[in-house]
Amino acid sequence: MNNVPAPTVPIRAVDVIRKKRDGRELSRAEIELLVEGYTRGSIPDYQVAAWLMAGVLRGFTRQETTDLTEVMLGSGEVLDLSAFSPRKVDKHSTGGVGDKTSLVLAPLVAAGGLLVPMISGRGLGHTGGTLDKLESIPGFNVNLSVAEFRRVLRLCGCSMIGQTEEIAPADRKLYALRDVTGTVESPFLICASIMSKKLAEGIDALLLDVKTGSGAFMKGEEQAAFLAELMVATGERMGKRVVALITDMDQPLGHKVGNALEVAEAVEVLSAGGPPDLRRLCLELAAWMFQLGGTSDCLSDGRKVAERLLDSGGALEKFRQMVELQGGDLSVIDHPTELPRARCRFDVSSPREGYVTAIQCEAIGTACVVLGGGRERKEDSVDPSVGIVLHKKVGDAVRCNEPLSTVHYNVESRASRARQLIAEAYRISDAPPAEPRPLVHRVIQAAGGN
Amino acid sequence: MNNVPAPTVPIRAVDVIRKKRDGRELSRAEIELLVEGYTRGSIPDYQVAAWLMAGVLRGFTRQETTDLTEVMLGSGEVLDLSAFSPRKVDKHSTGGVGDKTSLVLAPLVAAGGLLVPMISGRGLGHTGGTLDKLESIPGFNVNLSVAEFRRVLRLCGCSMIGQTEEIAPADRKLYALRDVTGTVESPFLICASIMSKKLAEGIDALLLDVKTGSGAFMKGEEQAAFLAELMVATGERMGKRVVALITDMDQPLGHKVGNALEVAEAVEVLSAGGPPDLRRLCLELAAWMFQLGGTSDCLSDGRKVAERLLDSGGALEKFRQMVELQGGDLSVIDHPTELPRARCRFDVSSPREGYVTAIQCEAIGTACVVLGGGRERKEDSVDPSVGIVLHKKVGDAVRCNEPLSTVHYNVESRASRARQLIAEAYRISDAPPAEPRPLVHRVIQAAGGN
Repeated sequence: MNNVPAPTVPIRAVDVIRKKRDGRELSRAEIELLVEGYTRGSIPDYQVAAWLMAGVLRGFTRQETTDLTEVMLGSGEVLDLSAFSPRKVDKHSTGGVGDKTSLVLAPLVAAGGLLVPMISGRGLGHTGGTLDKLESIPGFNVNLSVAEFRRVLRLCGCSMIGQTEEIAPADRKLYALRDVTGTVESPFLICASIMSKKLAEGIDALLLDVKTGSGAFMKGEEQAAFLAELMVATGERMGKRVVALITDMDQPLGHKVGNALEVAEAVEVLSAGGPPDLRRLCLELAAWMFQLGGTSDCLSDGRKVAERLLDSGGALEKFRQMVELQGGDLSVIDHPTELPRARCRFDVSSPREGYVTAIQCEAIGTACVVLGGGRERKEDSVDPSVGIVLHKKVGDAVRCNEPLSTVHYNVESRASRARQLIAEAYRISDAPPAEPRPLVHRVIQAAGGN
Repeated sequence: MNNVPAPTVPIRAVDVIRKKRDGRELSRAEIELLVEGYTRGSIPDYQVAAWLMAGVLRGFTRQETTDLTEVMLGSGEVLDLSAFSPRKVDKHSTGGVGDKTSLVLAPLVAAGGLLVPMISGRGLGHTGGTLDKLESIPGFNVNLSVAEFRRVLRLCGCSMIGQTEEIAPADRKLYALRDVTGTVESPFLICASIMSKKLAEGIDALLLDVKTGSGAFMKGEEQAAFLAELMVATGERMGKRVVALITDMDQPLGHKVGNALEVAEAVEVLSAGGPPDLRRLCLELAAWMFQLGGTSDCLSDGRKVAERLLDSGGALEKFRQMVELQGGDLSVIDHPTELPRARCRFDVSSPREGYVTAIQCEAIGTACVVLGGGRERKEDSVDPSVGIVLHKKVGDAVRCNEPLSTVHYNVESRASRARQLIAEAYRISDAPPAEPRPLVHRVIQAAGGN
């Protein structure tokens, strides 16, 4: 209809926004224009905000998602760990409640001979963050320079730090904007954010732990699987081995929620103990990491290696090394009762006899945030000592007035809101729940297999 | 599923954005939060940009559209013209090519006894703007204060000015943001923008001329009708009589496109002449305005009154009064050849014998912009003298090499691009077009009738 020749002018940001608004696929150059321009400061935040919202509502193709990830990755440094001979493998969780597997896995997998250069995040919304947990160990420094990070990796095979200034600055800037513009909840943007940061670690392979259930960001399993497939496909297009496990987050993992409490529970697992669900998930994730790293041929071998490393104390010893190298106080690892402890506690008891049939998991995470164990605003500081210990989990029988959980707190007013959240989170019924949800719902890997 | 009680915190901008992103209806308070906050400067542009994009893609309900219009209207002053005894009626066009009806209608309808307080805009995209046309009259001042505007209205019953600082500042700020964030093309936002400005004029009734066809912003008739119905419904909810005509813009209106050229053609119509399509549309619009203003009982009476006012010179005399009161040089009205004239001209001739079956109307508008008659960037100045005179319109027979149009230009390089646009815009076929498109496609009024 319009036979006016297309003008040969440079791409304008507004035209890229309109193209995405109209549901069309963007070219690499168009994505670069916005993302690099925004990172450099030449494209204003209001244009990027409009584009992000168009992307949330229109979606991105696989090619766009890969391009976006690569452009974000390329906005900063990619660590060169080629001087290290072991295969470099990392794990990333999409976030849950009571998920302290990273604290177990990094030393466990390093003890199994792989290099684990783990760059982690802070608590987000109702979920805890690995860095906040580590910082409940007095002296533990998560803010290492790249040189210090390499030193710890060289000396003990694993290191756990926060995102440095040099890693994917585009993601840091975009994430801050998404947080205030209602554009967080997009699998495409989540994928690009996670993958750009993780692939900046210079790893060979990545295991993704995509949570599903009432405590996950992706509540439904199909949603979680969509994100998992997207990340696996993006990793594959970028030449990395990536496997995703869809794992259960319909109730908290283990029994403890809260920073210092979770460190203590991770140390239990590293000491051949700990709650069965947490230990089992750690073994499963470790087995996949061993397989991705090529140190075991099959999952059952990997599981056995991992069991042996937990039961022999080899993994714990690796954890102690890392804690010491990063400035942490070893005495709290050897005597977890010396970790920061809240001044007060009370029990939330069952109003009736029956069986626990569900625990609204997000409410437990929110209760921990309310207690001060997470951030309601970005600038809030975190209280390492507070949290919740769950005595009863889904399937457990409970008597009337029997404690369901114990709340560890420091501020009375915060505790009362947490009590209400926790009491309402438990569902107690006459009959036990039909069948327990599996710990691993699904495994998603690239078509060619891994 | 989530039985956590809703927190009783104040509304946050990000939650309003998320609500619209998820396709839910916003409350008046939520719309106020964003629009008033943005106008005052307490809500940043990136949040508003994300919200606008969510609104473009999710749409707004009738109630939201009315709320948005009222909040934008309430961001500034509403003129109080209650001291004037005649009914106050205005007309607004959604923009076209060669649409100079406002120049005819304001004096024509004022000559018929109504008050026409017309606040107009500048050229936008490929379409011309009433203010730019008026400014081709040497000395004509469109930037009157409200007091001066009232004075001209009192003395001659009509006045034509630009948007003042006091009128709908929210719209001015939002429009500037929409322009650079790809959020212009939303019937809901267009409705709120138009209606908030027009209802700030303190009018009793409004006639909307919603253009459809290849030279309109709303190319398809259904799109145009959707916008028209939205504006009529919004006006009704706000207690105003509003009627919309869907009129044809599939070829330029009249024969002349370009600021001074269009003033000359408007003067032709005011002098009982002018092209038949332009005169006919002016009579039709005037008849509706007379009916809306209550000075005639039926459209046919209104048409007769309007014909008489054009043929008697009454409307022209009103135009002369207004031009003089607003500082314009009357000699160019009395001798239109003294209006600004371009230095050069050339003809675009037909490459073959046949009939004109279509004129791609947006291309003609773009050609005028290219010549300097409109703005490619907001800060560009406009050349009043350039433009295009169309000798052949749809349905006309044409011989090989016969001129289709004449281009009036000042800059050679601009003229050559305009020539190509115009040559390609004409479609010449062996057979005449089947049936002419009607001038008025449809009339849209509130269910209760007007």
